[in-house]
Amino acid sequence: MTVLERLQAELGAIVSVDAAELDASRTDKSGWTADGTPLAVVRAVTVEHVQAVLRIATEHRVPVITRGAGTGLAGGACGSAGTIVLNVAGMNRILEIRPEDELAVVEPGVINQHLNDALAEHGLWFAPDPASKAISTVGGNIATNAGGLLCAKYGVTRDAVLALTVVLADGTLLRTGHRTVKGVTGYDLTALLTGSEGTLGVIVEATVRVRAIPLGTVVTVAAVFPDVTVAAGASAAITAARLRPAVMELIDPVALGIVARYLGPNGSAGLDLGDGAFLLVQTDGPDALGEAEQVADVMRAHGGDVRLSTDQESGERLLAIRRMMHPALEQHGTVLIEDVSVPRSRMKEMFEEIARISARTGVAIPVIAHAGDGNLHPNFVIPPDPHRRAEDPLVPDNVWAAADEMFRAALALGGTLTGEHGVGVLKRRWLADELGDTSFDLQRRLKAVFDPLGILNPGTMFEQ
Amino acid sequence: MTVLERLQAELGAIVSVDAAELDASRTDKSGWTADGTPLAVVRAVTVEHVQAVLRIATEHRVPVITRGAGTGLAGGACGSAGTIVLNVAGMNRILEIRPEDELAVVEPGVINQHLNDALAEHGLWFAPDPASKAISTVGGNIATNAGGLLCAKYGVTRDAVLALTVVLADGTLLRTGHRTVKGVTGYDLTALLTGSEGTLGVIVEATVRVRAIPLGTVVTVAAVFPDVTVAAGASAAITAARLRPAVMELIDPVALGIVARYLGPNGSAGLDLGDGAFLLVQTDGPDALGEAEQVADVMRAHGGDVRLSTDQESGERLLAIRRMMHPALEQHGTVLIEDVSVPRSRMKEMFEEIARISARTGVAIPVIAHAGDGNLHPNFVIPPDPHRRAEDPLVPDNVWAAADEMFRAALALGGTLTGEHGVGVLKRRWLADELGDTSFDLQRRLKAVFDPLGILNPGTMFEQ
Repeated sequence: MTVLERLQAELGAIVSVDAAELDASRTDKSGWTADGTPLAVVRAVTVEHVQAVLRIATEHRVPVITRGAGTGLAGGACGSAGTIVLNVAGMNRILEIRPEDELAVVEPGVINQHLNDALAEHGLWFAPDPASKAISTVGGNIATNAGGLLCAKYGVTRDAVLALTVVLADGTLLRTGHRTVKGVTGYDLTALLTGSEGTLGVIVEATVRVRAIPLGTVVTVAAVFPDVTVAAGASAAITAARLRPAVMELIDPVALGIVARYLGPNGSAGLDLGDGAFLLVQTDGPDALGEAEQVADVMRAHGGDVRLSTDQESGERLLAIRRMMHPALEQHGTVLIEDVSVPRSRMKEMFEEIARISARTGVAIPVIAHAGDGNLHPNFVIPPDPHRRAEDPLVPDNVWAAADEMFRAALALGGTLTGEHGVGVLKRRWLADELGDTSFDLQRRLKAVFDPLGILNPGTMFEQ
Repeated sequence: MTVLERLQAELGAIVSVDAAELDASRTDKSGWTADGTPLAVVRAVTVEHVQAVLRIATEHRVPVITRGAGTGLAGGACGSAGTIVLNVAGMNRILEIRPEDELAVVEPGVINQHLNDALAEHGLWFAPDPASKAISTVGGNIATNAGGLLCAKYGVTRDAVLALTVVLADGTLLRTGHRTVKGVTGYDLTALLTGSEGTLGVIVEATVRVRAIPLGTVVTVAAVFPDVTVAAGASAAITAARLRPAVMELIDPVALGIVARYLGPNGSAGLDLGDGAFLLVQTDGPDALGEAEQVADVMRAHGGDVRLSTDQESGERLLAIRRMMHPALEQHGTVLIEDVSVPRSRMKEMFEEIARISARTGVAIPVIAHAGDGNLHPNFVIPPDPHRRAEDPLVPDNVWAAADEMFRAALALGGTLTGEHGVGVLKRRWLADELGDTSFDLQRRLKAVFDPLGILNPGTMFEQ
């Protein structure tokens, strides 16, 4: 029997060879599309389904691409020629919520926001908040160690994962971690698997740490500054003043101009967005207003035109300027969102580097940043090209050249080429540059311990 | 040349064969003493020293036990027959403090408290706070993923480690992680190495995350309850009320009686310690007093006799009841501190199990617990035995039998056999029971990737 026949014989109707479904599995939210067509998409609903797929894949030595909601931004979960796409989006049950232990147990396909909706009834929340949280899965958040807007204050996804159940390449079930806050028995496989992008095993259950929703109201403060250097200086001064905003987002003048035109004069929340830089802060907790007022003082001292909002409605209007950034960019073409991160103190230099790279290459690079943690998203907008043939690459060479310069600049500033999106296929060519040969070689050998046949998401993270 | 001659030829005066120094390296704060005598103690001061030791050890296939201040509680860094003890306590420089990036770079031998003293000048602190912080090293804190009193609110050591420089078994230098809050390039080797107890490599430099010291004064609330079940109920109710104490420590009646006799009537901070259970809470941050008052209300509602202190002096008197616990126990013999952790909701049951085990085995088991995170320290006090011969084991069989029952009870309650001390040699016999065969086998294979010859701290974590 072929591998497809084996899958169909053992798993029946959950094995799809529908052309549209196969095609949809080749891409994600990065705009990347994998070469060729996968053999099948298996819509797993149980742990046993996942184990069966991996057993069969091991026997036939066929690669398996694990996929959730397909919201990745690095091409890390796209079905390519000859692969089995293992879709776990249907494993979407919340298995337990334990307020007294501040934990929840979920299947990997649970949407982040759905988990938060269920937790809210208990006064709890799951802190990892990637911008995609309305559509991305907890399993995908863990597989990429997703970041988001709240990380400087509330940590990255890794900090919220207590335990995992994982199907290994040969179909064996592995349990890691514990239901306790502390636990140091053996190596921290939970952390090793978090952010491993489907290359070490398939997450089929996760025990995550949840928190009490902070008391009090969220307060929003936003300001427009004359340029991005001043805005970055203001954000650094907020951290230096020992304030700890929940959210601190920065939009550079190139990006702000685009979103200002998109929103129109009624969408500017009373601010002159002009060609300035925008800094938005949200504070929470019992002293949210006091902290916000101190933030506003710092912003004013840096020459910002400040708005402070304590009611949800006007706060939402300010936040919309940040939220509408991507829809605004998408009006102009396909958006390639980059994701470098630098030490906070080097953020100003990184903005300068990006401006230089933009000037030199003639590529516009609107930037938004999670300023609290030095994570910048330089965006490349690739306009529709009527002359582009299907076989032409989506990303033109001059954009890759600019991205290459940008990655090297981030590394030179002590940064990293991906703060929260993952390596996927889009950034693997720079992996060894950042890791160095010793780490790169060690990581490949660790991968081989989990996946001796190399069938788990090959091509993601490491070139094949 | 013998391995000792090689070490002496290459490293000169830092290689010691002094009998007292060799002997001192055989033990740690657990009371465990390793069999036999090590070949040498090498007092490394530079990275190159560490690399030389590991190169020579690899060539000669001689085991290396890495050791800092020797404050471990699991026998995990004790020099045994035929080993080289690599002492990195002399690598004790603070290399960088970067307030704007909220990070510090240190050598492994820096004492936790020394780092905190240096950070305090910048209004910063390093959150991991094992009870040993005045004498334990940051390298040792990382090697054991040390916990402490503040973990429920401020995380474990792993959450505070951004990057490591590690010498691998063959002397190669490995760099992991980054100087940024976020970073997802490749596998999280920093987390894998944290808590690996010297079995994967030797930490020679660490980049740690530091925080702004919380604003406001610390407020202390303490109460005596009629029994441990009520006290545990009060601690659970504090968490359920969405309060987030920095410290929440619980002392059971057996332990409280011992410390009360040790402190005498003048040391009881005005409380009738009698034969009750003691719960101590500290709150911090801008609303410390408001939170403390709510904590006091919850305690009173549970029948506690409550004292609330806003001044440092009376707060210290309350805290001393907890702090003097170990000196008090040590008056009665050698103390074996166990370290189980259970989900918070099962803490009451764990106390009941311990009481049952104590009654059944006739072994007194005074318990103190980090109640905020379900981490219990049942103590076995082994009285001096004038009839004990040097070759007799320190820990009598009935104590091991009681400990064995206790570990199994913790696992049955969904807990772990070590919350913060590590496996070392003292708990390795239960390792596979907790991990299960799949994880145990995988962990051994991961160890082999880092240490193919098995020369790094053999016998720690895994039986040889």
